[in-house]
Amino acid sequence: MTDALHPLDAATTFTPAADGSLTGRTSPAYWNMVGPFGGVTAAQLLKAAMDHPARIGEPVAQTVNFCAPIAEGDFVIRVKEVRSGRSVQHLYAELVQGETIAANATMVFARRSQTWGHHASPMPEAPPAAEVPLLTQKPPLAWLKAYDFRYISGLPIMASEAFPTPQSARSLIWVADQPRRPLDHVGLASLCDVFIVRVFQVRGLRTPAGTVSMTSYFHASPEELARQGTRPLLAKVDSIRFGDQFHDQQAELWSDEGKLLATTTQVVWFRD
Amino acid sequence: MTDALHPLDAATTFTPAADGSLTGRTSPAYWNMVGPFGGVTAAQLLKAAMDHPARIGEPVAQTVNFCAPIAEGDFVIRVKEVRSGRSVQHLYAELVQGETIAANATMVFARRSQTWGHHASPMPEAPPAAEVPLLTQKPPLAWLKAYDFRYISGLPIMASEAFPTPQSARSLIWVADQPRRPLDHVGLASLCDVFIVRVFQVRGLRTPAGTVSMTSYFHASPEELARQGTRPLLAKVDSIRFGDQFHDQQAELWSDEGKLLATTTQVVWFRD
Repeated sequence: MTDALHPLDAATTFTPAADGSLTGRTSPAYWNMVGPFGGVTAAQLLKAAMDHPARIGEPVAQTVNFCAPIAEGDFVIRVKEVRSGRSVQHLYAELVQGETIAANATMVFARRSQTWGHHASPMPEAPPAAEVPLLTQKPPLAWLKAYDFRYISGLPIMASEAFPTPQSARSLIWVADQPRRPLDHVGLASLCDVFIVRVFQVRGLRTPAGTVSMTSYFHASPEELARQGTRPLLAKVDSIRFGDQFHDQQAELWSDEGKLLATTTQVVWFRD
Repeated sequence: MTDALHPLDAATTFTPAADGSLTGRTSPAYWNMVGPFGGVTAAQLLKAAMDHPARIGEPVAQTVNFCAPIAEGDFVIRVKEVRSGRSVQHLYAELVQGETIAANATMVFARRSQTWGHHASPMPEAPPAAEVPLLTQKPPLAWLKAYDFRYISGLPIMASEAFPTPQSARSLIWVADQPRRPLDHVGLASLCDVFIVRVFQVRGLRTPAGTVSMTSYFHASPEELARQGTRPLLAKVDSIRFGDQFHDQQAELWSDEGKLLATTTQVVWFRD
C-alpha cells in the first residue's frame, strides 16, 4: 500500500468553481475502447451529487444516460437540486464538455431509518471467491485491469465469427476493485457497470456497442458497505431480448455475507 | 365503443404554450390513494416527450422520478432536448405544479434499424388469459378499475396484521387496459407501473408506501405493439431486498405471442 489516492478516488476528485460547478478529468485507469468505462462516469456523477452542499442522506437510486462520447480531458459537472423532502431528495446532474452534454443523471438520496426488513430471495449459490480462478487473460483495455474477475459461469469467449448458436446471456462472477478499495457507494456505482455487454457474450463476437442508459438501486447503508470492505462481491447478470440495435441487461451485486447490495439494469446499443 | 377519448388518451392530451411547455391535468380515472397512479405520470411524461418538435424515433428508455405529491388539477411539463445524435436522442422533462417539480424524467429515443435478434429466455409459462379468472374484488381506487387483472399466481392478500411469515414477492398476471386500448408506447409506459407494491404483498399489510423512481425499457416497435392490439399482456414481477424504508422491484411485460415488450424496475419507499 502507498499513500497515493486509489484511481477511483483520483477520478472522483473535483475542483469546485464559484458557481458551484465541479471540474473533473477523465481517468486513464478506467479508459475503455473509445471513451471512459461507463462505471467511472456513474461514480463521478454520484460523487458530484454527494459533494453538493444541499445533499442529504445516502444514495438510493441513480440513472445515468450516456448521451455522447466523453473525450479524454476535462469535463464540468453541474448538479441541480430538484426537490428535497424531509427524508428523500432528488438531484439532477449533467456532465458537460464544451457545448455537449455528454452524460446526465437523476439521483435519489435519503435519510434512511430502520424498518421491517426481509430478503425474499437468497444469494445465488457460488463457491467462495478464493476457490474460483482469477481471470488473467483480458483484452488490453485499461478498465478491465481496474477489476479482478473470477468467473463462476458465463465467461465471455470472443471469436472472429459469431457462434452458430447463441450462448447463454448469464454470468456469475466474483468481482473486486484492483487495486483493492474499501467499498462505498461511489465504488458500488462503478461496480454496477462491470459486466461485458451481453451481446458480445451471447454472439461470441465484438461489434460496436455501448450502454445508453443505466439505473442502479443501492440497498445497503454506508456502514454495511464498509463492513464488506475490500472483499469481492458476487455479481449475477442476465439479458432477455436482443434486436433492432438494443438489448436489456439486469444484474445483482451481493455481499459475500449474502446481502443484496445493489440491483442494476441497463439498455445497451449495438450494431451488427 | 364510443367516439369518446380513452381515459389514457384524455390524460395525455396537452395544451401547448408559446414557450413550448405543455399544460395538462390530472386524470380522475387514474387516481390512486393520495395522488395519481404513477403509471399515468410516466405516460404523461413520455407523451410530452413524443410531442416535442425535435423528437426523433421511438421510445427506448424512460426513468421517472416521483419527487413530490402531485395535487389534483393542472400541471405543466417542460421537455428539454439534452442531446441528439444521428439515431439516438436524449430528452429530459420536468412536471411542475407552481414552484414544485413534482416529477422528472430522462428518456431515450432512437431510430431503430434491424439487427441480429434473439430471445435468450422464453416467456414465463402461463395458461391463456381466457382461462384465468378476472379479479373482481378490488380496493376502491380509481386506477385499479382502469386495468383488468387476471392473477395466475401471487394475488396480494391484505389483512389487518402482517403475516407471521413473509409471502412470496412474485406475481404472474395477465393485465389489460379497461376499457381496452390498442397498445402503444404510451400505454406500455403506464402498464409498467401496474403492480401492487411488493411490500404490501409480502407483508400482507398496507402501510404508507410509494414508488420513488421507476425505469422502463421498451423492446418492441410501434408496429409490434399495434399487432398486440388490445389483448392482455403477461406481467411478471419480483423483489429481493426490503429494509430501511426501501425495496427493489423488477418486472417484465410480455406479448401473448411470447415476445418481451418491456423490462421495468422501481425502487419503492415504505414506512413500517
